Amino acid sequence: MTTTTTPTVTADLAISLDGYIAGTDVTLDNPGGNGAEPLFEWIHNLASWRERQGMTGGEENRDSELMREWFDATGAVIMGRMMYDTGEKFWGDNPPFHTPVFVLTHRPRPTLVKEGDTTFTFVPDGIHSALTQAKAAAGSRNVDIAGGAGTVQQYLEEGLIDELQLHIVPALLGAGLRLFEGLGPEAGRRNLEPVRTIATPLATHLKYRFVK
Amino acid sequence: MTTTTTPTVTADLAISLDGYIAGTDVTLDNPGGNGAEPLFEWIHNLASWRERQGMTGGEENRDSELMREWFDATGAVIMGRMMYDTGEKFWGDNPPFHTPVFVLTHRPRPTLVKEGDTTFTFVPDGIHSALTQAKAAAGSRNVDIAGGAGTVQQYLEEGLIDELQLHIVPALLGAGLRLFEGLGPEAGRRNLEPVRTIATPLATHLKYRFVK
Repeated sequence: MTTTTTPTVTADLAISLDGYIAGTDVTLDNPGGNGAEPLFEWIHNLASWRERQGMTGGEENRDSELMREWFDATGAVIMGRMMYDTGEKFWGDNPPFHTPVFVLTHRPRPTLVKEGDTTFTFVPDGIHSALTQAKAAAGSRNVDIAGGAGTVQQYLEEGLIDELQLHIVPALLGAGLRLFEGLGPEAGRRNLEPVRTIATPLATHLKYRFVK
Repeated sequence: MTTTTTPTVTADLAISLDGYIAGTDVTLDNPGGNGAEPLFEWIHNLASWRERQGMTGGEENRDSELMREWFDATGAVIMGRMMYDTGEKFWGDNPPFHTPVFVLTHRPRPTLVKEGDTTFTFVPDGIHSALTQAKAAAGSRNVDIAGGAGTVQQYLEEGLIDELQLHIVPALLGAGLRLFEGLGPEAGRRNLEPVRTIATPLATHLKYRFVK
């Protein structure tokens, strides 16, 4: 249950039917990896997504509503260093987060204050520290673990994610980075509860809650 | 499109949210593998499933309807040798298929005729031959690729499956046999079309069609 004192920790990811959240050969210049286009192409024309990037137009459909719901519910974001490095230039002076963002890194550096209420705070002392800081910053809203794959996996492994929303796109990638990798059989002791399922032609949106 | 001359080839599998269709250490005595209970426990109390096994009782719910729909639509079944070997004793004299079953094997043996219209035909000359025979036997109904994982993967790799229904159970296994393993990037060229999504508390039933 969401309360005002303990923000819900979410992860919200586009995933292929065969479980990939990125393609092959992910690099700084190719953060989605090869073959990953089907994961993201349904997003580009959503009105809520475009609005968030400072663009106009796009479609106002159920998928767009879900995207807006997630944006609005998020009060702080955590991401890995590679996601930050690959996004930094693309996001520009007015990044699409509009909340405090905590970046996991090994090298401390000063907080960056951007336009539109986005700040980037660099956290050198681990995922728990980042979560504590993000929870303090999120107020009554959620903390979202944005990515990349390795970062979400770390939080999953530690049982720190409360709600997982997967947007299953109707595509197979056949290769790439899987969301669920290396969890091990102890993952079987986690209890998942379906929260809702919303199907559109673009994606099947599944939301689950981890219950203690 | 289903026509009376070309049966639709289906695969219908229970799968964990993290993509496993069996647990670890699958053996003849432990065909589901360790940790696989969540994949199958939602099935045991469905009225349609119990009826098919010659039992009475069970719940008449949406999940049960879907199971009955699949049974009724199936006119022939293909399975791997290991699935046959592990099921043989359990299925007894009146196996739950009630259709011709084609078993992929390297060792030819005579066809077995069981009660309730189940026959087991052993096919030593490969998956294409089994499919041709199963299509001829299915009449106007579907050919279902029943399993195990390796058999479904072979038919998937060859692009021989028309419709894929996945029953996603709200559980993580963390380890085991994945449905989507070793497909390779060429899988990205296959076009999937969502057919329908039905969500119940027990499972999220996703059906897709491969389009040419």
